[in-house]
Amino acid sequence: MDYEDLGFAKVDHHRPIRKGFPEVIYCQGKSPSQIAKIAASIARQGHAVLATKADRKAFLAVKKLLKKAKYHKAARIITVKRISNIEHRTSNIAIITAGTADLPVAEEAAVTAEFLGNKVERLFDVGVAGIHRLLKNIDRLRKARVLIVVAGMEGALPSVIGGLVDKPIIAVPTSVGYGANFKGLSALLTMMNSCSPGIAVVNIDNGFGAAVVAHYIARCA
Amino acid sequence: MDYEDLGFAKVDHHRPIRKGFPEVIYCQGKSPSQIAKIAASIARQGHAVLATKADRKAFLAVKKLLKKAKYHKAARIITVKRISNIEHRTSNIAIITAGTADLPVAEEAAVTAEFLGNKVERLFDVGVAGIHRLLKNIDRLRKARVLIVVAGMEGALPSVIGGLVDKPIIAVPTSVGYGANFKGLSALLTMMNSCSPGIAVVNIDNGFGAAVVAHYIARCA
Amino acid sequence: MDYEDLGFAKVDHHRPIRKGFPEVIYCQGKSPSQIAKIAASIARQGHAVLATKADRKAFLAVKKLLKKAKYHKAARIITVKRISNIEHRTSNIAIITAGTADLPVAEEAAVTAEFLGNKVERLFDVGVAGIHRLLKNIDRLRKARVLIVVAGMEGALPSVIGGLVDKPIIAVPTSVGYGANFKGLSALLTMMNSCSPGIAVVNIDNGFGAAVVAHYIARCA
Amino acid sequence: MDYEDLGFAKVDHHRPIRKGFPEVIYCQGKSPSQIAKIAASIARQGHAVLATKADRKAFLAVKKLLKKAKYHKAARIITVKRISNIEHRTSNIAIITAGTADLPVAEEAAVTAEFLGNKVERLFDVGVAGIHRLLKNIDRLRKARVLIVVAGMEGALPSVIGGLVDKPIIAVPTSVGYGANFKGLSALLTMMNSCSPGIAVVNIDNGFGAAVVAHYIARCA
Amino acid sequence: MDYEDLGFAKVDHHRPIRKGFPEVIYCQGKSPSQIAKIAASIARQGHAVLATKADRKAFLAVKKLLKKAKYHKAARIITVKRISNIEHRTSNIAIITAGTADLPVAEEAAVTAEFLGNKVERLFDVGVAGIHRLLKNIDRLRKARVLIVVAGMEGALPSVIGGLVDKPIIAVPTSVGYGANFKGLSALLTMMNSCSPGIAVVNIDNGFGAAVVAHYIARCA
Amino acid sequence: MDYEDLGFAKVDHHRPIRKGFPEVIYCQGKSPSQIAKIAASIARQGHAVLATKADRKAFLAVKKLLKKAKYHKAARIITVKRISNIEHRTSNIAIITAGTADLPVAEEAAVTAEFLGNKVERLFDVGVAGIHRLLKNIDRLRKARVLIVVAGMEGALPSVIGGLVDKPIIAVPTSVGYGANFKGLSALLTMMNSCSPGIAVVNIDNGFGAAVVAHYIARCA
Amino acid sequence: MDYEDLGFAKVDHHRPIRKGFPEVIYCQGKSPSQIAKIAASIARQGHAVLATKADRKAFLAVKKLLKKAKYHKAARIITVKRISNIEHRTSNIAIITAGTADLPVAEEAAVTAEFLGNKVERLFDVGVAGIHRLLKNIDRLRKARVLIVVAGMEGALPSVIGGLVDKPIIAVPTSVGYGANFKGLSALLTMMNSCSPGIAVVNIDNGFGAAVVAHYIARCA
Amino acid sequence: MDYEDLGFAKVDHHRPIRKGFPEVIYCQGKSPSQIAKIAASIARQGHAVLATKADRKAFLAVKKLLKKAKYHKAARIITVKRISNIEHRTSNIAIITAGTADLPVAEEAAVTAEFLGNKVERLFDVGVAGIHRLLKNIDRLRKARVLIVVAGMEGALPSVIGGLVDKPIIAVPTSVGYGANFKGLSALLTMMNSCSPGIAVVNIDNGFGAAVVAHYIARCA
Repeated sequence: MDYEDLGFAKVDHHRPIRKGFPEVIYCQGKSPSQIAKIAASIARQGHAVLATKADRKAFLAVKKLLKKAKYHKAARIITVKRISNIEHRTSNIAIITAGTADLPVAEEAAVTAEFLGNKVERLFDVGVAGIHRLLKNIDRLRKARVLIVVAGMEGALPSVIGGLVDKPIIAVPTSVGYGANFKGLSALLTMMNSCSPGIAVVNIDNGFGAAVVAHYIARCA
Repeated sequence: MDYEDLGFAKVDHHRPIRKGFPEVIYCQGKSPSQIAKIAASIARQGHAVLATKADRKAFLAVKKLLKKAKYHKAARIITVKRISNIEHRTSNIAIITAGTADLPVAEEAAVTAEFLGNKVERLFDVGVAGIHRLLKNIDRLRKARVLIVVAGMEGALPSVIGGLVDKPIIAVPTSVGYGANFKGLSALLTMMNSCSPGIAVVNIDNGFGAAVVAHYIARCA
Repeated sequence: MDYEDLGFAKVDHHRPIRKGFPEVIYCQGKSPSQIAKIAASIARQGHAVLATKADRKAFLAVKKLLKKAKYHKAARIITVKRISNIEHRTSNIAIITAGTADLPVAEEAAVTAEFLGNKVERLFDVGVAGIHRLLKNIDRLRKARVLIVVAGMEGALPSVIGGLVDKPIIAVPTSVGYGANFKGLSALLTMMNSCSPGIAVVNIDNGFGAAVVAHYIARCA
Repeated sequence: MDYEDLGFAKVDHHRPIRKGFPEVIYCQGKSPSQIAKIAASIARQGHAVLATKADRKAFLAVKKLLKKAKYHKAARIITVKRISNIEHRTSNIAIITAGTADLPVAEEAAVTAEFLGNKVERLFDVGVAGIHRLLKNIDRLRKARVLIVVAGMEGALPSVIGGLVDKPIIAVPTSVGYGANFKGLSALLTMMNSCSPGIAVVNIDNGFGAAVVAHYIARCA
Repeated sequence: MDYEDLGFAKVDHHRPIRKGFPEVIYCQGKSPSQIAKIAASIARQGHAVLATKADRKAFLAVKKLLKKAKYHKAARIITVKRISNIEHRTSNIAIITAGTADLPVAEEAAVTAEFLGNKVERLFDVGVAGIHRLLKNIDRLRKARVLIVVAGMEGALPSVIGGLVDKPIIAVPTSVGYGANFKGLSALLTMMNSCSPGIAVVNIDNGFGAAVVAHYIARCA
Repeated sequence: MDYEDLGFAKVDHHRPIRKGFPEVIYCQGKSPSQIAKIAASIARQGHAVLATKADRKAFLAVKKLLKKAKYHKAARIITVKRISNIEHRTSNIAIITAGTADLPVAEEAAVTAEFLGNKVERLFDVGVAGIHRLLKNIDRLRKARVLIVVAGMEGALPSVIGGLVDKPIIAVPTSVGYGANFKGLSALLTMMNSCSPGIAVVNIDNGFGAAVVAHYIARCA
Repeated sequence: MDYEDLGFAKVDHHRPIRKGFPEVIYCQGKSPSQIAKIAASIARQGHAVLATKADRKAFLAVKKLLKKAKYHKAARIITVKRISNIEHRTSNIAIITAGTADLPVAEEAAVTAEFLGNKVERLFDVGVAGIHRLLKNIDRLRKARVLIVVAGMEGALPSVIGGLVDKPIIAVPTSVGYGANFKGLSALLTMMNSCSPGIAVVNIDNGFGAAVVAHYIARCA
Repeated sequence: MDYEDLGFAKVDHHRPIRKGFPEVIYCQGKSPSQIAKIAASIARQGHAVLATKADRKAFLAVKKLLKKAKYHKAARIITVKRISNIEHRTSNIAIITAGTADLPVAEEAAVTAEFLGNKVERLFDVGVAGIHRLLKNIDRLRKARVLIVVAGMEGALPSVIGGLVDKPIIAVPTSVGYGANFKGLSALLTMMNSCSPGIAVVNIDNGFGAAVVAHYIARCA
């Protein structure tokens, strides 16, 4: 059977064949016990496990069933093993943040990308308010195969990087900010309307999603 | 009497005393004949006339009553005389646009600022997609007393300039763009949420409003 | 000099070095005469010219100055020459539409991608209302290096394809639809929130932007 | 009298005649004591009681007055007796969810439908990210008289089912998701704009409402 | 082959088997020539043709290829033949409007429902401002199997009918109104939040969609 | 019969008894011929006729059937006779506008109020930019029984008047403005959130609605 | 002096002369200590005190300084004395709610109206889902001078009452509901767009504001 | 080196040269430990420290490393030393609030402006509901060089002041209010659309941002 039916969930065991990696558990709205049972079902197939937006309770429930489970606190991710289907040359995915507060989303992207077998270069807190911090590091960015740029508030960083680099950019708006930021809507619209070509956008705070797109791009090398 | 009552309008002749310049005519929603009558009422007091968002029909109606009326096509502004209460040292207001399509709004700001007696420095099409165009001209900007930065699409330019210059910046979002731009909302939110301090924002496409704030700032010197 | 200053525009001649292709002219909000002058400035450097969202008037103005200009009507694009920096193996970019009305945006993407030197595979009108049309063609999609999926109305097509294919997907919402579609907002949100990983999104009706991201992805092979 | 006046409420005892079932108590914004008194008023008429969006406190208050009260925890529903005005042939209402997190809304629909005397077929976690899980079960869906399809995030599932089945579909958006999901707005718009005909939509998280429409549809057989 | 590939469209000839009626042509965003070719492709299979949101130009193009084409002006629909798979007892679908301006949307629903073989009862202009007009006709509504209620402005009519009738109601918001109506959004939200159970909603101005849902409901008798 | 059924409309002849004045024709979305037939139906009962948001075509159609019809151009209203059920003491309804561009909405209110038998005091163009114009006329406002305050742009005028006058204020936002005005939304929200007590709001540009509320208030004297 | 300056507040002691009643304390965003000091300042002038949106902590702070303070729990209002400038004939303000959950807002209106010296008639839970409850009580409503109609969810009740009664109606949307209710926005838009004339609207949950408008209307008798 | 790299942050030590004052710490989304480390890095360079939106935990962490740290509770600001690059003549920045609840945002502006070396004049609670409080103090405002006007609810105060004073006004919308206030959106739109010229706007609740713009304006004297 290509899925296991747990009643509350039908775990998709066919996914590695179609998508190159197993089903990933999105924890929000699921109970710790449900999360643990899905994780166990994936692990029973010999697949690696990744669970995102996970709190400590979810981790403890998973840990009980799967001793090797590991909790990445900053990223709010649970992993069991990792996938390693890519031969690395230098670092292939660069992850850049505008500010310190964007770090949790950037770490969600980084841990996911590493789980999928990529090498990750982190460059944090190089927002446009002090653009020399970016310009000094631009060569590191040019070496990457694909860039994930994470920014809250006005979200202008991808536009600036997009004017300087000839690599595909996956922009991630974050909900960092207040007032007319509207929980990330401001950064989302900024990134959507960028005048610099070469930018595509994922959902607000969706570090995981950015990492998967970047993974598919990096993999084609 | 400190205003003249035309029935459909009460022209505010006291405004020069309170605000330093006469009532300005916002043409939208007024008939050419109404615009011309208000203009004549202002001129009869010996005041200079400025009418914004004016089309050619409005201009012709004004021209009939006030022979010296002049039409600034790109700015969509009618003027009769100008005010000159400022001694210029070098240029005091710099007006910068991100792109060519932002030009009409920038011209509305420029013509208004000149009408109010300021000297204006124009720097057009230096958006973040080709940031070297901006960096090469940054010294010109640093000489201004106040900057008006006009940008549509994602509106990131004020944030970048705000990171480089220690002058007050009046940001003007324009309705240039499409799709998730939502007629200027995207640029407006970007500017509101800027991580660079020193930026305040006026309404979408409101070149006139930006010029008046800049005028008050420049005047305090 | 790395840009030419036309007053209303500073044409960025340095862009091919930074971004791999010359400045592209976004025609909306520019006069035919401005468009033609920018095009001529680019051509004088020996670069190829691409102008998007162009109407016939813009084309005629360009044609006067550049005899070899060509108008792609369905795509609303003007080109002069094309770039050819890629050695093709099979087709590398697949462009899929949900419906017939999404065709102009898809053609904007296709013509742009071809201008940039890519080979394009078109698969139109395979929306979820008749999903067998998609399933019958799924193998053609799996051969592409990157997919551009164009959809209006509810914009569900990228999610479905994203569940079946292990390639990066650039999703383009279109303004096709009515009522609670809100000119493409519905499709935009759908694509942003996709439960299928591997999808990133560009602006509503932004076929050009999708093509550039896809180009950078395809090029890394 | 066709209603009982409790001061804070006028309990509608005429409703079974007009609508085929008694007034249902929507608990949000009512105190446990108010809920219990309304429930008792309905029960005194010999009618069955259904209370939705109920927490445990409300249940305990009702339980005190009505010993046979039962709490359906996953559905957050209190019932006292059930209505049984329908002769079942096979299952007549199928309830499908896209993901595990949509389960509470689906259970609200299921418990309501069963309360109203219908037979319910549950099919959970068959979202479009792993569409084979749906396709394997499509025959079960075709046997239903009416389908309730519950989905959060991008809410694409009703469109896909709507392309495959010739039954009326009641789509229920859920608030599952984050960021540009805007608490269910994304799924709501998706369902509203579906390109598959045969779909009508109820409010976000409104499992109860979907069940009542489905009940009226099923009943007409 | 279960679809015909016209290049710009893949006409779904398998649809009558899955959905009970052939593909319907949504005309917006398609050229008259494209519409006519799709219509001809459907007709060649011996299927009946329905095209919605059609203007006169589209009709003339279709008429050239299909002599029996008929234009329903108020409904903006083109038909060629109609389907007749239902044995009528009395009228089975009642279509009610709040006001006269809602008539085009109601007619789109009515013509579609008749095309699909249903008998339709029309009851127009019985909005809540003069509720006696509704109350006098309530018995006619109670005889229907399913009700389509069309309303613009505040869209309160479905709630009132929903309090009186034990039949499924398909509510259709229209874009009739101005100001804070926001092109139908007001009526849409009203219907979504109805306190009367038994109501499901389709897109703004989507008379066609309402008719298809009603058709599936009526058919189950 | 208390209504006349014209097929496309059920004209409510019972309304004068319930509401004190006959049905009013809202012209938008109705054809000139429909408008004229409804007007004739009302007139046949001996009632006065009021039609709002009417263009000249509608007027000519009504004029053909009802010779005494009169067109109020600025107000875009057609009247036939007027109602006179109120004994006037001084003026009882004051109508104030912030600017000249708000005049059409104010005239819609004024003509409606006069049609209903009220005496109207007009005070136009006294917006907050020149508040002395208001303060000089405040005594005229204090004599009214009820005030209608019409304002676009930021819509601050009702708040200021509400701080000075102890009369009920009906605030009417207009769609005058641009950019972040969002077609009157800005003024609507301002009026809704006024810190001055005694203000209630009607729809954007709804001069008619304001006049009817004011009429009911004035009448109670 | 016509106001007392407490530093954090300038208490407006001139208000009774301009508005007919003293400054009212809006408690949200103020500390209990600030509320108590403002209350004391008002009471020192011999004026009655009304404080809205007050919690128990605020009440206790006021009680310490003003022994006669009284807390109206359901209305979340603190009063000290009441104003009595109106001679009552029968009840002059009727307050109607659609549902039980709207009660707190209705009580805020009722307590305020009584504080201002009016007689109030309460009619709760007569929403459109069981319209006979309203119709049976319609004569009580017709006796009032002005109606306050409080409704959440879809907010249709004012429209229905507005079709039946020739009195001014102040509509109060409440934030009762969920999902596409958007915290009262749905009811607000419904009331704004009502097809029944004679309705004006105050802010969501603003029972206080409705009472003041109603007070001014009732007073003019 | 012109920045210090702490890993999670790159502290910009070059900022005083570009912007005239050191990097300011925006505390939201940063841990107390991160805040303290950034503060220490700034202080090590001999620069003054300002941290906004800071809670007591953040203060205690900073205090441990920097003994002279001071917590401004009402403003939620931490400072270590202050900058003093301005020679004061009279007060140069006036800060005005509409109500008492706007005080925290006003204090954030005031403490920031003082930190930057300005003299501040505070004028609180002079909103338009009691406009005499403003008019009595207008001369104090005319003496300032620049005005910061802080207002929630409908945010009308800047428009009124803008009609009376010929100084630049920085308007700060606050999130004070409820219902259709939408957390400050109402006041933001009001200020954006002001009919009084000379007003520019910063983000909702952004007292800090307003102070920096005002500082640059005041400094040019």
